[in-house]
Amino acid sequence: MSLGFDLIKTDAGARLGRVTTPHGAFSTPAFMPVGTKGAVKGVTPEELRGLGAEIILSNTYHLYLRPGHELIKSLGGLHRFMNWDGPILTDSGGFQVFSLCKLRKIDESGVQFSSHLDGSRHLLTPEGAIEIQEALGSDIMMTLDECTPHPATREYTENSMNLTHRWAKRCKDARKNDSQALFGIVQGGMYKDLRRVSAASIVDIGFDGYALGGLSVGEEKPLMQEMIAETAPLLPVERPRYLMGVGTPEDLVFGVSQGIDMFDCVMPTRNARNGTLFTRRGKLVIKNAQYERDPAPLDEECACYTCRNFSRAYLRHIYMMGEILSSRLNTVHNLHYYTTLMGEMREAIGSGRFEEWRKSFYAMRALAPA
Amino acid sequence: MSLGFDLIKTDAGARLGRVTTPHGAFSTPAFMPVGTKGAVKGVTPEELRGLGAEIILSNTYHLYLRPGHELIKSLGGLHRFMNWDGPILTDSGGFQVFSLCKLRKIDESGVQFSSHLDGSRHLLTPEGAIEIQEALGSDIMMTLDECTPHPATREYTENSMNLTHRWAKRCKDARKNDSQALFGIVQGGMYKDLRRVSAASIVDIGFDGYALGGLSVGEEKPLMQEMIAETAPLLPVERPRYLMGVGTPEDLVFGVSQGIDMFDCVMPTRNARNGTLFTRRGKLVIKNAQYERDPAPLDEECACYTCRNFSRAYLRHIYMMGEILSSRLNTVHNLHYYTTLMGEMREAIGSGRFEEWRKSFYAMRALAPA
Repeated sequence: MSLGFDLIKTDAGARLGRVTTPHGAFSTPAFMPVGTKGAVKGVTPEELRGLGAEIILSNTYHLYLRPGHELIKSLGGLHRFMNWDGPILTDSGGFQVFSLCKLRKIDESGVQFSSHLDGSRHLLTPEGAIEIQEALGSDIMMTLDECTPHPATREYTENSMNLTHRWAKRCKDARKNDSQALFGIVQGGMYKDLRRVSAASIVDIGFDGYALGGLSVGEEKPLMQEMIAETAPLLPVERPRYLMGVGTPEDLVFGVSQGIDMFDCVMPTRNARNGTLFTRRGKLVIKNAQYERDPAPLDEECACYTCRNFSRAYLRHIYMMGEILSSRLNTVHNLHYYTTLMGEMREAIGSGRFEEWRKSFYAMRALAPA
Repeated sequence: MSLGFDLIKTDAGARLGRVTTPHGAFSTPAFMPVGTKGAVKGVTPEELRGLGAEIILSNTYHLYLRPGHELIKSLGGLHRFMNWDGPILTDSGGFQVFSLCKLRKIDESGVQFSSHLDGSRHLLTPEGAIEIQEALGSDIMMTLDECTPHPATREYTENSMNLTHRWAKRCKDARKNDSQALFGIVQGGMYKDLRRVSAASIVDIGFDGYALGGLSVGEEKPLMQEMIAETAPLLPVERPRYLMGVGTPEDLVFGVSQGIDMFDCVMPTRNARNGTLFTRRGKLVIKNAQYERDPAPLDEECACYTCRNFSRAYLRHIYMMGEILSSRLNTVHNLHYYTTLMGEMREAIGSGRFEEWRKSFYAMRALAPA
């Protein structure tokens, strides 16, 4: 097995663990900042480390199109290319094909699509997805799946799920060596029984870790939670569990409470650029006029570089002016918020206080915003 | 006198000095990175320090319009607002009014203009320019002048220059205290005799330092050099000399050779965002296809964070993708280039080797680009 996983402690359903990869270890529950095109927007690898990020995610689809996986391979792989020497997880490219591309055509072989950049035609197959990720040299690869749209009929969902299972098997077979781990993805849409079928099928194929896909795709929050609660317990205890593309701070806390170990989402970085900042009391929209003359930091108790050095008034000013520094300082704050949140949860699980911590998390958010 | 200036050594016309302000000292010759709207684009104050910047420039015009000097004053002044505790020089706002605004109307009282942001009408007077800069709390203020356009008739230039002299006197009279230094500005267009008259008039009024204005406004390089060579020697030896808005690395070297002590220019930061990088061998345009697979750093001998950690291939990729990190890494490199260039010149002057250094600077640039 190319991926080590130590499950250190379980507390009120939440799991504290440690994953070991060829590029070092990371503690779980972990949040993975997203470096779509080989860069986490606005921050350097050095800063990411300083912010407590231990693993990042990068997008196969984008890197395949530009600058191309062969180019990255010829320059020593993605780690060296982007100067991040820690663990990297790459997705399969499938999700972006489904969300960004027009003229998609799915069949047994794979998915044909037109590049969102120049309209050029491409075919992404399970074998191709593995080949690209092997060229990138990520520590954790993902199988190609169809992210079932929502809403979808039971028939569509079942067919899509079965295709995902066949693709998963082909991905596993296509893998050339096991120095890069491979995670399988559970689909099944919003149908509990299909989720159960999918979990069993994917576990049966056997992977280094297991992901829940096709969630946070427009469904209501309780429905998403129901699917997570139904599926997570079906995954092998001794392997890491990854909830893909989720989510808000509340989503992370819920996911952890259900035994999820890994998360990724563009929310902290994208919201930062849009001027929406996360605080213990909820979100703060920095452009609001109320902050025009506010000398306070974003969050009095936050220890990030942004909060230690700049007022809301200044952050509002540079946001309104469209300064690059605004995206950057906001990103530092939001990523710090996310990594700190995960750290707090790990500490709470380790000391057997997760349920208590979870209550205080919600209590704090019920207070009036600053 | 609110501004201390120690002239430490003169070598082949170049001057090594040290300027003391209420927010600390800086060594000269000095390059001032430009923080137009209260932020040097893409970099934090902490990074600016690390890059060797000791003084920065900020633009009165922009801060007057947004967020307003009174707001900045109420929050403790510009230093605290932008979290830069070192020396700050502010311009008078005049240059931006002349370069950015429509519907300008100049008369004895000052200059009426329409904001480039919302078209609102404003009147900038010499007294107003000082009041705004006093509210900002900069260490070095500039007098309001008319930056004479090029080309301009002798008659226009002379009238404009005389107005600048009268405004300079009014600025000096308007100053409420001498804790903030005030520099006078020599105009006179491209007429040597007017430059001499202007230098004499401005020196006669008496300021903490003296600037050459109205250069690098479209004239040929030899003409600019002629004006600098003619005017710089007329300025008091015991006060700092500032060449406004200039320029390229070659311009800085020429200016230093003529006894100039201070420079500012948006070139390193703006060019960085446009993908043009400065190296010892000249400029490098990172988008060029030749760098697509180039594993070398921008400059093998550069010690900046960007060159120590990233290849040209990566820098080209993130530039092409429009990543924020591109602007940032390029800015770090270009500012490092500028501050290092100034540091090399200071060291050469200090050790009596400026002329030798200057020859090697040009010899390096004559080599084939990397």
